[in-house]
Amino acid sequence: MAACDLCDNPGGELLWQDALCRVVRIDEPDYPGFCRVILNRHIKEMTDLNVEDRMRLMDIVFRVEQAVRDVMNPDKINLASFGNVIPHLHWHVIPRFTLDRHFPNAIWGPARRETPAHAIDVHTASKLKNRIQQLLT
Amino acid sequence: MAACDLCDNPGGELLWQDALCRVVRIDEPDYPGFCRVILNRHIKEMTDLNVEDRMRLMDIVFRVEQAVRDVMNPDKINLASFGNVIPHLHWHVIPRFTLDRHFPNAIWGPARRETPAHAIDVHTASKLKNRIQQLLT
Repeated sequence: MAACDLCDNPGGELLWQDALCRVVRIDEPDYPGFCRVILNRHIKEMTDLNVEDRMRLMDIVFRVEQAVRDVMNPDKINLASFGNVIPHLHWHVIPRFTLDRHFPNAIWGPARRETPAHAIDVHTASKLKNRIQQLLT
Repeated sequence: MAACDLCDNPGGELLWQDALCRVVRIDEPDYPGFCRVILNRHIKEMTDLNVEDRMRLMDIVFRVEQAVRDVMNPDKINLASFGNVIPHLHWHVIPRFTLDRHFPNAIWGPARRETPAHAIDVHTASKLKNRIQQLLT
């Protein structure tokens, strides 16, 4: 198997993990609070997982969604699982704001406006980590 | 409430429905077999649904994923729920091919190549509808 970045690296700041998967926050200045839920195994599609793991993974994605909503108070949540570049299951949980760089486009689409970089502050990052850990206990 | 296109219209060719949601195939010449799972109620976020409906909706999304894999045999499946333009829960289930118009980019991103339009043929469309109905029975 070719080297896989998500097999070899955490893929962000580790916020929580168990045997199935991990939750990380990625450093994306245009999207503070952007988290990913990454399967620990190298599996390509949700339907390659057994039903139990599949539903448990989604339950974790939705708990992360709830934590991101609670702390970041976004106008919208975007969820996506692509894996076109890295075919290792990972879910994007993205807080969106009507004035963010791409809104209402997908963040992978054309930018709609220039926005000052606004990296997450230490206090908010800490609140997000705590809230995720609280909802995943 | 402002008029909502997904409250007022099926949103594609109706393949299956129940009280919670419907499955449609959309007419997207670059992406034959592109399906959506659309909640019947006007709800914005997955975490606005109760846990039972949330998990049932995902179970349907994954059955559609399986049907799309079985019939279209894609190189990858892309799943996404955005709702930035229409804040009414709907999931995109997109069969991706390494030579499609955007691969490996998201379909909302920059095109990577020109591809001849290749609308789904009647036979394949029928097989997809049958397979979805079979897996959702």
